[in-house]
Amino acid sequence: MRDKLIVTSGGMDSITLLYEQKDNIKRALSFWYGQKHKKELDFARCNCEKLGISWSLIDLSSLLPDLKSNLLYGGGDIPEGHYEDENQKLTVVPFRNGIMLSIACGIAESCGCKSVLIANHAGDHAIYPDCRDTFIEPMANAMKYGTYARIVLEAPYTYKTKRDIGLIGHDLGIDYGNDTWTCYKGRVRHCGKCGACTERREALAGFDNTVYEAWL
Amino acid sequence: MRDKLIVTSGGMDSITLLYEQKDNIKRALSFWYGQKHKKELDFARCNCEKLGISWSLIDLSSLLPDLKSNLLYGGGDIPEGHYEDENQKLTVVPFRNGIMLSIACGIAESCGCKSVLIANHAGDHAIYPDCRDTFIEPMANAMKYGTYARIVLEAPYTYKTKRDIGLIGHDLGIDYGNDTWTCYKGRVRHCGKCGACTERREALAGFDNTVYEAWL
Repeated sequence: MRDKLIVTSGGMDSITLLYEQKDNIKRALSFWYGQKHKKELDFARCNCEKLGISWSLIDLSSLLPDLKSNLLYGGGDIPEGHYEDENQKLTVVPFRNGIMLSIACGIAESCGCKSVLIANHAGDHAIYPDCRDTFIEPMANAMKYGTYARIVLEAPYTYKTKRDIGLIGHDLGIDYGNDTWTCYKGRVRHCGKCGACTERREALAGFDNTVYEAWL
Repeated sequence: MRDKLIVTSGGMDSITLLYEQKDNIKRALSFWYGQKHKKELDFARCNCEKLGISWSLIDLSSLLPDLKSNLLYGGGDIPEGHYEDENQKLTVVPFRNGIMLSIACGIAESCGCKSVLIANHAGDHAIYPDCRDTFIEPMANAMKYGTYARIVLEAPYTYKTKRDIGLIGHDLGIDYGNDTWTCYKGRVRHCGKCGACTERREALAGFDNTVYEAWL
């Protein structure tokens, strides 16, 4: 029974969840809110096509002038380093998961889905408040009690590390190097230095063929 | 100190809240998500101009194909009657308040506002799950813990009736007949028969100069 809707970016976490739940997913949504590159969105689309899952791009670029983040067009430079570093806060897009989940919830109820999947994980917690359980739990209740369908929020990686996720994907046979995009910069290759690349390198150490710019 | 952001439709509830909190409001947002008419949005803009409050229209019309409601373009007819009537459920836009509040929350954090105001009220509860306290309370926690700024959700009319709101606005000197728009149909005059008009008529009985089509 395909009755779940997934929010997916094209990064390794949400693509892992996409593969893990592929037989239960009716629809996938990706969001364009003015990121400095759209590269990740192509990876989301291609994986959905491969799995025969209906994919839609939700265009929120009209919000761009009103959202403040270095991840977005018009914002400052993408900082390098580790998610725990203070400068990584510049990459926060205020309440992004709240915005994506709310829209996903409304669409899920409209199209007869029973739940919404999101791939936030423990490694995000240091920097992104809308990835923590303190956000996920009330958001789940808001979605449940704010809909007739009692939409369920499923965030199964909330207490898993990115390494845990990489191991799940490895077991599923996901080709992270060719089928996912994590880097905050949208160049030909992953930069290997931004916060997202740093986390990815650590998570996939030992079983990944991604070629990072920093290595060349 | 102007540090609040309000979600306003141009209807009597949110315009009353706009006037009541006018000295505290930094920004006002209205949303275009494919409603069958845009008339209410002009009333929101005009009141904000009159009060010197910055007003923005958030364009979510790209969501229209994915949201199911008789209130929207492409949906069925607007039902007539009272909010308690079963047919009024056709006017629910799934998780609309969740969507609007999430976007308002992200923008509030981006522009330095401390709280978000919304004018849901007790009369909405019968039909709109995302107007009830069971939604508002967890949503407030999601917004608080999902942001660095700990954005506060203020929904001061949650336990007030529409009549209570009308009395507040009457004391504030609001000219409901000329300065607000409630009707779900976007004709020259309020129809007087749709759910929203029925509620408005009862709430403003005795001190309103709105001329309803149904009376002509």
